[in-house]
Amino acid sequence: MADKMDPATAIGQLEGWHKSGSKEAITKTFKFADFSTAFGFMSAIATQAEKADHHPEWFNVYNTVEVTLTTHDAGGVTQKDIDLAKKMDALASKLA
Amino acid sequence: MADKMDPATAIGQLEGWHKSGSKEAITKTFKFADFSTAFGFMSAIATQAEKADHHPEWFNVYNTVEVTLTTHDAGGVTQKDIDLAKKMDALASKLA
Repeated sequence: MADKMDPATAIGQLEGWHKSGSKEAITKTFKFADFSTAFGFMSAIATQAEKADHHPEWFNVYNTVEVTLTTHDAGGVTQKDIDLAKKMDALASKLA
Repeated sequence: MADKMDPATAIGQLEGWHKSGSKEAITKTFKFADFSTAFGFMSAIATQAEKADHHPEWFNVYNTVEVTLTTHDAGGVTQKDIDLAKKMDALASKLA
């Protein structure tokens, strides 16, 4: 199992992510051109998430996707969250 | 534009939907066997939503999808929300 780390340590390795309010988690809001692009982003990430058996919490309304990442087994943020965050950032920058 | 209706009227035509706390909206939480099934549900509905140009607000974590429906243009619940809710219920019952 991946080791839990301080969310601040995780955020330091990423761009535009924040500590989630009350939780041992990191969060970022992605905005896209429209719903199709936002849902395309989610679909591509869903496949990656399933492959890695590590899933996001996410809220979508129209062109916006609010993501929260944490590793439930570890009770906090782990390398798995950083890896998934980086995949999301890379894809979002392509779709922008 | 579709006419706004009392959320209670909408709920009366549906199964398992509730008035959303503070909003002129209706909400339901769907639970599936696993993430893949939950996201499959979202993907199928996303296509329908895009076709109808009427999109849900939804939150997904693992096998759970929390949906909120409202018609922003009308400032409340309309027939469009009932139609989308019925599509969701029909698909969810197939996937259960």
